[in-house]
Amino acid sequence: MRIDIITVLPELLKSPFEASILKRAVEKGMVEIFIHNLREYTDLSYKQVDDYQYGGGAGMVMMIGPIDKCISALKSDRDYDEIIYMTPDGKTFNQGAANELSLKKNLIILCGHYKGVDQRVRDHFITREISVGDFVLSGGELAAAVVCDAVIRLIPGVLGNETSALTDSFQDNLLAPPIYTRPADYKGWKVPEILLGGNFAKIDKWRESQAMERTEKLRPDLLK
Amino acid sequence: MRIDIITVLPELLKSPFEASILKRAVEKGMVEIFIHNLREYTDLSYKQVDDYQYGGGAGMVMMIGPIDKCISALKSDRDYDEIIYMTPDGKTFNQGAANELSLKKNLIILCGHYKGVDQRVRDHFITREISVGDFVLSGGELAAAVVCDAVIRLIPGVLGNETSALTDSFQDNLLAPPIYTRPADYKGWKVPEILLGGNFAKIDKWRESQAMERTEKLRPDLLK
Repeated sequence: MRIDIITVLPELLKSPFEASILKRAVEKGMVEIFIHNLREYTDLSYKQVDDYQYGGGAGMVMMIGPIDKCISALKSDRDYDEIIYMTPDGKTFNQGAANELSLKKNLIILCGHYKGVDQRVRDHFITREISVGDFVLSGGELAAAVVCDAVIRLIPGVLGNETSALTDSFQDNLLAPPIYTRPADYKGWKVPEILLGGNFAKIDKWRESQAMERTEKLRPDLLK
Repeated sequence: MRIDIITVLPELLKSPFEASILKRAVEKGMVEIFIHNLREYTDLSYKQVDDYQYGGGAGMVMMIGPIDKCISALKSDRDYDEIIYMTPDGKTFNQGAANELSLKKNLIILCGHYKGVDQRVRDHFITREISVGDFVLSGGELAAAVVCDAVIRLIPGVLGNETSALTDSFQDNLLAPPIYTRPADYKGWKVPEILLGGNFAKIDKWRESQAMERTEKLRPDLLK
């Protein structure tokens, strides 16, 4: 998989891809990440990429010209499965979307910044708009990193133990059951007896019922 | 505001706080961010902070001991409004929660990693569990950065133009209307006529109806 991220803040995206799972996936050659500084695609002075909005109002708008130039340069080199725009009014990202995107080959992710991009970018270049949630960030960079993390860890071989991802929350529309590790007794707070025995059939059943109970209590909407 | 982030991957959190709005907020003294490496709070060899889960199953669990030690050290120095755990089965984060947290003074954010933390940590130390969405990340670090970004930009004075945050999506339960900037005509794609005139009353009306239309089309759930 290849992911091209277009941003006005390339420095913000540095450490997420240089640590942990993402770093390992890159080093193993399972994913290639290219971060493009939008300011390199403007012809204006002071590397300007944004301007005031038509009709007045606070906040700057990212101009269509540099974005067109950057996306067109990428598209002239290869085909892309999706050109994604990170925006709070996009479709809410979830595990299903992560699963789907993990099967793609080439993705462009455009990070919104300031008040967002000129609407014509969305109308003419973007194939999918993604929001990571009903809140506003100062830019799409962290949201893009979140999407990349959720997607890349699903590529077979990226996680050390593949079964680990399959027992995560949401993969079966249930929250994960409670988990415990040593010590069995910490300051009087004890691990449930059943987990300490070796009856795995019983343990599986307990986990299923705990997952169901927790989902009913915390996220009944997932069961609909 | 002071935010203490507890993590096994401090290096992942470097660049988000060294760029853009978050950097500016730190430099202006409006927020203090302290990142604590959980491995410095373990007595075990190899700086171990996780262990196999009781009852079997893939994935490691973060142990209660080091987390207790780190949280207790912080709490002995000051009072905390909330001790937050980032987890996919927490309460879904939204703009309302961001607004609420932006008024707090001292926050601890514990980043989950591997399969998550020992349940006893959640039962005895955590006051609030937050999920950034219905998807699984390889760790809570990016989720913590997302929460910090959404919260910190709401602190008065952090954004250059305060009215900018008030016209964001979600602040009035509506998605933002489309925005445009120069040029008025780009390859034949034109900015709506109404925005080019100077009739601001008309423009306001147009924006309101566009915001409503977009919300009805993309996110009817927000209108309920």
